[in-house]
This record gives sequence, structure tokens and C-alpha cells, in this order.
Amino acid sequence: MTSSVAIVEVGPRDGFQSMRSVLPTATKTEIIRSLYQAGVRRIETTSFVSERAVPQLADATEIVAFSAQFPELDAQVLVPTARHAQRALAAGADHLCAVLSVSESHNRGNVRRSPMESVEDYRQMVETMPAGTAMRLNVATAFDCPNAGRVPERAVLELLDHLVAVTSDAEIALCDTTGKADPAQVTALFEAVKKRFPQVRNWAFHGHDTYGLGTANVYAAWRAGIDVFDASVAGLGGCPFAPGATGNVATEDVVWMFESMGVRTGIDIEALVQASHVICELPDSQTGGRVRDALSARAKRAVAA
Amino acid sequence: MTSSVAIVEVGPRDGFQSMRSVLPTATKTEIIRSLYQAGVRRIETTSFVSERAVPQLADATEIVAFSAQFPELDAQVLVPTARHAQRALAAGADHLCAVLSVSESHNRGNVRRSPMESVEDYRQMVETMPAGTAMRLNVATAFDCPNAGRVPERAVLELLDHLVAVTSDAEIALCDTTGKADPAQVTALFEAVKKRFPQVRNWAFHGHDTYGLGTANVYAAWRAGIDVFDASVAGLGGCPFAPGATGNVATEDVVWMFESMGVRTGIDIEALVQASHVICELPDSQTGGRVRDALSARAKRAVAA
Repeated sequence: MTSSVAIVEVGPRDGFQSMRSVLPTATKTEIIRSLYQAGVRRIETTSFVSERAVPQLADATEIVAFSAQFPELDAQVLVPTARHAQRALAAGADHLCAVLSVSESHNRGNVRRSPMESVEDYRQMVETMPAGTAMRLNVATAFDCPNAGRVPERAVLELLDHLVAVTSDAEIALCDTTGKADPAQVTALFEAVKKRFPQVRNWAFHGHDTYGLGTANVYAAWRAGIDVFDASVAGLGGCPFAPGATGNVATEDVVWMFESMGVRTGIDIEALVQASHVICELPDSQTGGRVRDALSARAKRAVAA
Repeated sequence: MTSSVAIVEVGPRDGFQSMRSVLPTATKTEIIRSLYQAGVRRIETTSFVSERAVPQLADATEIVAFSAQFPELDAQVLVPTARHAQRALAAGADHLCAVLSVSESHNRGNVRRSPMESVEDYRQMVETMPAGTAMRLNVATAFDCPNAGRVPERAVLELLDHLVAVTSDAEIALCDTTGKADPAQVTALFEAVKKRFPQVRNWAFHGHDTYGLGTANVYAAWRAGIDVFDASVAGLGGCPFAPGATGNVATEDVVWMFESMGVRTGIDIEALVQASHVICELPDSQTGGRVRDALSARAKRAVAA
């Protein structure tokens, strides 16, 4: 296991896109600033998608420009297709995050393509990527699909055969889209991919807390040697194409767990909790996680005492 | 790791004692019945304590009598001192659960004694226990104390030296009273006690979810070979002498995790969730856990579809 981990804050993308209302750009940028000030150095800041389908992220170009001002901030942007990747690059993004699903039905729900068609699209994205651009690949429904149920390990490995053949330089995140992965499954899948694809140097885990296993699964992935974890401040977000799958694992809970174990995250938990309070006050925000409330109760007692 | 685990449902004791209002005995017995019907076979049904201090559990005698009717139900009752143990035995209890804290200040808050005075009291309890009575020993603040902070492993081992000398037949539960234990600490402590006390055959883990690590810590304990876990339906309860430490890990979440991993609990998750809904509707109930809401959302969608 590693003595430090990288947290990728996905709230500004995964969280904001799930809200019913469209947040003002100024609200988003203040939240990104407060996350940066809390020590967060990787943020999925936005996504280049159809503005009609996801009006919540129509200000992606402004968000990319805003995020470029922070030293050492690694700002990745989600791009569902090669066409949207070109838009992101034109806006100045230098870290793209491709996404496709192992499950056919889930991938069609997201981008109206089969997984193999998305592999071809990913190949095109990688081939036309300018030098100096970093790539992250999100493999959604790597554990469970809202339509098809538990996803067999074999299906993930076979899709990865094609994806790793495109490039082994991308950071690959295995995503528990529904939150139904369990720690034994997380351990088994990461052990399997690390064994089968030794040429891939960077793996990540994207987990949800829908069924209360958010931190347990992160812990299991870390035990399997993973050191990059997606999480969302205040547990915001989910997948709009996976009904009920609200609840990314809360960044506060993940940071709390790692720091308690003596594993460095670089994030100041008190400052992060302050930032999370702003999120909780947003309209329509469905929040999760426990540390925020626990630390706030403690702070209130301290004031009262 | 084991292929089956035993869940000790502590809601009827740990949960009900934390409520501001006193539940009618008939409400308690219906909840115990519904838990039994869901497959729960170990329940901490009540506690013999000062009725003045904890009026919520003043009906302990009736609860013991009621619980005796269920075949194969192992009903344990909490007894803070040898004097209360005698009351429990007189009421017909055949499974006692002693409790003391590693932390001096926490133990004094609970029973106005030093830990070593409680060890002597425990010795008296064990010596006067009739044949056929089972003993569980809860070691509170085994990881963290609300007053003194993180509890050093050495302090736990040294107190256990005295306790195991009294008897090695008791099941010993290490309790994360504040919810601040982390998975690495849980792993280390259980590995240490199993190594130091090979004569103790039965260990258990009592965890809280206050900081979002409820299931992660249960998973870590299970990985360390533990197969008995305290949990509370709907995440009810906490410790009245540990402010802010609400939130036992929810039974639904623990059952969901183990069953997802193929580890048998003997509990029907759907029936358990039904029982948890009754708890949520009680006055003053502070509830936790995620599985209840996730499965309920799914059920509502199924009805709507």
C-alpha cells in the first residue's frame, strides 16, 4: 500500500451535472477556488457534452479558462466522444477524461453507441491528441450495471484488451457506477487488471456510497495497490443515466479515512469541510457522507463549551 | 476470512437507550419480533441499569421474558456491574454482556470506577455466574476515547491481560465507541489481540459509522479473521457518555456488504429493511446507513414502472 494518495475531486463535474438547476458560473468558480485552497490538486472541473442534454455544464469553456490560473492544479475535463474532445482541446484543456461503459445498454444510454464503437472513438481521440495532453479513461459499469446487474470480470478484462491496445499511457479508472460493488469484488478486479496489464502504470478507482460501501471499497482498492481515487465534495452527484445511483463517495470521508491511517492526501480536512458546507446550501443538492456532520457537531460543541 | 458471520443486533439496547423518549414495551417487542422474523438470531435486547439513569430500559425484565419465546434466539443483555448482573440473572437472562472502558475517564463516566475496579467487578460477575450462562465482554474505547483521543494499542493489551486472566471463555468485543477507528487500526489491533491471547476463541467488533468508516472497519475486522459484528438496525444509537458518537454501523449496510461478498449472515435484507422503516418512524430516532434508502428508492421505482 502507498503512503500517499491522490484524490480527484469530481464534484464540479459529476455533482453539478446531476443538479436540476443550472448553477451560475461564478458559484462554480468559487467552489473550485475553495477546493484548491483546501489543498485539492486534481479536479474534474467540467465536461464538454451536448449543451442541450446537459445545460448544467454549458459554461465548460469558461471553467477551463478559470481553472488554468491555479499553479499545480491538474484540471481534467470529461469528454464522451472524440468530437467533444476537440472542443475541449480548442478551449485549452490539457487533461482529457474519456468515458465508456462495459455494459452495452449503459453505453448506449450515455452515447448511443456500442462499447466497441466507443473503443474506436477512443482510438480516434488518442490518435488526434496533441503532444503534452494527458489522458484519463473512465471505464463505467466495471462492477455493476443499473440495467444488466453485476458485470462479470471477464467482460471488463476483454474490453480492456481493446482499450489498452489503443494506449497504455492513459490513467484507467474502474468505476462503480451504481455503488453496488463490494470490497471483495473491488480487490479481485484490481488484482486481475494489474496482473493482465502490467504495462498500464496508472489505475484509479471511482466509487459511490449508494449502498454504504463507499469507503470500504476505497480501502479495498488501496489495499490492492491503487493510489488515485475519485470522490465528490459533500458526496454530491451520481450518474444521470443510472437511476438511483446518487452518491459519489464523499471527499471528506475519503480524506478523513486516509489521514486517520497516516496516508497523506495533501488536503486540509477542516478547509474541505468548510467548502462542503457551501455545497450543502446549493439548491437541489443531494448530499452524502458522514465526516462533514461529525466534525461540524464537534465544532458546535466546542463553541458551546 | 470466514464464509459466514454472526450479526449481533444492538438496536433494541444501544438504540432505544439513546432516544429521548421512552418507547412503549409493546413497540420494542414488535421490533424484536420483526428482527427475529428477518433472520436475526443474536440480539442485545436490553440492559439492566439504573432505571433512574436510563428510564428507556426500565422494562428489562419484561423484555427478557418476551425474548425467551423465540427458538434459537441468542438474546444478550448488557450489565454494567456485577450487581446489575444479578438482577439480569434473576429475570432469567442466560447471556450477559459486561462492559468496561479502556479509558479511565470514559469508564468513570459510565460506572464511576477506574478500569481496574471494573476488572474486579467483572471477576466477581464471572465467579458468581451460574453454569450455562454465556458471557460477552464489551471493551469500550478500544480505539479512541471522546475525552482522551486515540487509545494506544498497548493500553488495550494491558487491560486485556487482566480481563483474559479472569476468563478466556467470554466472547470479547473491541468497541469503536466514537467511530474514529480506521481500517488500518482495526486490522492492527485484532491481529495483536489474536496473537497475544490465543486462548480466547471468540472475538467481536462493535463499530460506529460516525465518520463514514462503519463498513470499512467491519470489512477490515473480517479480513483479520473476525466473524461476529455488532450493528444496529437503521443505524440507531450511540453512546450516551460519548457526545456526538451517534451512529452504530447500520445492520442493513453490514448485511448488504457481507451478502454481496457471498458471506452468509442468515438475514433477509428485504425483511430487515422493512423492520428498519418502523424504526425510522419512531419519535426522536436518529438514523443512519445507506442501504435502506437505496433499496427503498429501487422499490418505489419498481412500483412506478
